[in-house]
Amino acid sequence: MQRVFNFGAGPAMLPEAVLEQARDEMLDWHDTGMSVMEIGHRTDLFAPLVEKTEASVRELLSVSEDYQILFMPGGASLQFSLIPLNLLGNQKTADYVNTGIWSKKAMDEANRYGQMNEVTRVAEKEGRLCIPKQSEWQLNPEAAWLHYTPNETIDGIELHSVPDAGTVPLVADMTSCILTRKIDVSQYGVIYAGAQKNLGQAGITLVIIRRDLLKQAASFTPTLLNWQVQAASRSLYNTPPVYAWYIMDLMLDWTLKQGGVSAFEKFSQRKSEKLYRHIDAHAEFYVNRVHPDCRSRVNIPFSLVNDSLTPVFLREAEEAGLVFLKGHRLVGGLRASLYNAMPEAGVDALIRFMSDFARRLG
Amino acid sequence: MQRVFNFGAGPAMLPEAVLEQARDEMLDWHDTGMSVMEIGHRTDLFAPLVEKTEASVRELLSVSEDYQILFMPGGASLQFSLIPLNLLGNQKTADYVNTGIWSKKAMDEANRYGQMNEVTRVAEKEGRLCIPKQSEWQLNPEAAWLHYTPNETIDGIELHSVPDAGTVPLVADMTSCILTRKIDVSQYGVIYAGAQKNLGQAGITLVIIRRDLLKQAASFTPTLLNWQVQAASRSLYNTPPVYAWYIMDLMLDWTLKQGGVSAFEKFSQRKSEKLYRHIDAHAEFYVNRVHPDCRSRVNIPFSLVNDSLTPVFLREAEEAGLVFLKGHRLVGGLRASLYNAMPEAGVDALIRFMSDFARRLG
Repeated sequence: MQRVFNFGAGPAMLPEAVLEQARDEMLDWHDTGMSVMEIGHRTDLFAPLVEKTEASVRELLSVSEDYQILFMPGGASLQFSLIPLNLLGNQKTADYVNTGIWSKKAMDEANRYGQMNEVTRVAEKEGRLCIPKQSEWQLNPEAAWLHYTPNETIDGIELHSVPDAGTVPLVADMTSCILTRKIDVSQYGVIYAGAQKNLGQAGITLVIIRRDLLKQAASFTPTLLNWQVQAASRSLYNTPPVYAWYIMDLMLDWTLKQGGVSAFEKFSQRKSEKLYRHIDAHAEFYVNRVHPDCRSRVNIPFSLVNDSLTPVFLREAEEAGLVFLKGHRLVGGLRASLYNAMPEAGVDALIRFMSDFARRLG
Repeated sequence: MQRVFNFGAGPAMLPEAVLEQARDEMLDWHDTGMSVMEIGHRTDLFAPLVEKTEASVRELLSVSEDYQILFMPGGASLQFSLIPLNLLGNQKTADYVNTGIWSKKAMDEANRYGQMNEVTRVAEKEGRLCIPKQSEWQLNPEAAWLHYTPNETIDGIELHSVPDAGTVPLVADMTSCILTRKIDVSQYGVIYAGAQKNLGQAGITLVIIRRDLLKQAASFTPTLLNWQVQAASRSLYNTPPVYAWYIMDLMLDWTLKQGGVSAFEKFSQRKSEKLYRHIDAHAEFYVNRVHPDCRSRVNIPFSLVNDSLTPVFLREAEEAGLVFLKGHRLVGGLRASLYNAMPEAGVDALIRFMSDFARRLG
């Protein structure tokens, strides 16, 4: 079997070079005679990997020492709870930008611990989905934090500018866009990202926290989910997911080698523009509902004008080695996720297939 | 580099056959043209793995349909919190058998949510460590549960009989002994086990719960850590650690192929007896402090009568391909962990080395 182009939204396609290295080191990592899976997290062998992974994150995103970096077990969804548990303190309320299902889930979970305010939600602009301008948002200057999800994978909506949160700490779920564009970390209070898109293997989450926000967690917070505890133990309070950590390290190495975040910013721009151009040029056959101002560079949902052809499209695409193009179960249709590991050849192959499919069945 | 014998307590040695299969399938699993790492948890490709893993657990441990099986993110230590969060309900108190550092940690964490009672603790018997007989325990028949850790990795203490909890649900942390001896699941309310010893890769935890115990979790429980929620979604509420799940599946396959739990029960008995016999026969040089009634079959701590030789022992052992024999940082000395993946050849090599070392330096 040939490797396929995997357009799934996550767990997502990984670079062949990363998988090859993981394969080659599976029985013997760095001449240890062991797999990383078999190596204790407190050993002298694992310690350099911990150092190196953190250093790579700092280098790739220019993270200053004002920020603590954590590698936490579980996914980004677990952080939906950890944000209120660790940040609410004596405050009662925080702000949420509701740009789609993921930000809504984050807000709903936080609502269990306080009173969360929806400052804006997706609206229509010129008949397409878009996020209202910040001037129209209902921000609370006393909020404990302002949460947003820069990229929403399901509807394929991206906020292309960073909200101005004033003195309120800005909290961002960057699971689906981390390492795809340059960011200024100093604009954020907390950045978190599950690994399964651009950071490797599901089961570990990167959390970057401005140190002054590491305060007293709620009394009922499970010890392991207390950011302060994890910070004090350098994310080694208990056995961490060592292999997921290792795969993240390989992903970071690969990202650096390809030119870092600025290279991937250009790359994601180029790949997504190509695909949107093709969709828009065949509007009689393919539709994307998002306003150009808010289109995601990494998750591109589209549908067929004749929806009854969707199963045929999926089956034939799969036969052509283009897999997991099915839209999210909540919205249907089709979706192409173009994370960093998706080569341009994958996008080109998809466009060729779409072009041929429309010609044959249009 | 040759593969070594890894005596670490966890993340621990895995079977070469499992690692070889993981290596061979890294770029192409089951003719999908993808790694399991790249496959969405809600796809038709992943679903059979979910089914199969659960079926293997049921087969290996004869788990009836009265029990729910969960695959949870994080390690067993996270369950230390989830037990009170999910089981305490309107009750205030539960019982803990304190047989070492791990059961103490579990009790301390639960104490944050209620009043936990230590029913017994390790004592001395004939000058050695042992767990008092149940007739001496202070059990509370009204306890919400009785928690114990059948095998304590740090001191190498094992409780060889199952406590009689009466009508109180028995909760067991089997992280270090699962699949090493036959158990009667119907004696338990909850069994949980982190994966990094006999179930594969750190970052996923097996939880087996009697269905009637799946009740209302505490109101402040993070949604993802609610056993009921995870049960209702078959552990797929959010993105699970798909690759750790896959490695667990490979481990379960391998365990079945080797003859299942009864084979490993005999195997662990044979391996550990051999090593204890050697230690006891060289009491002028090597010491194990645990009473024979309570000795662990899987974690065998020992020390050198002349402790100043410990660093020499460790260095020379490593040169001989016998690694991670250092005792836990809290107790020092040496420790050999003999989980299911440790072949008898590893134990034999260790014994030969110990014999030679004692002859040369004794």
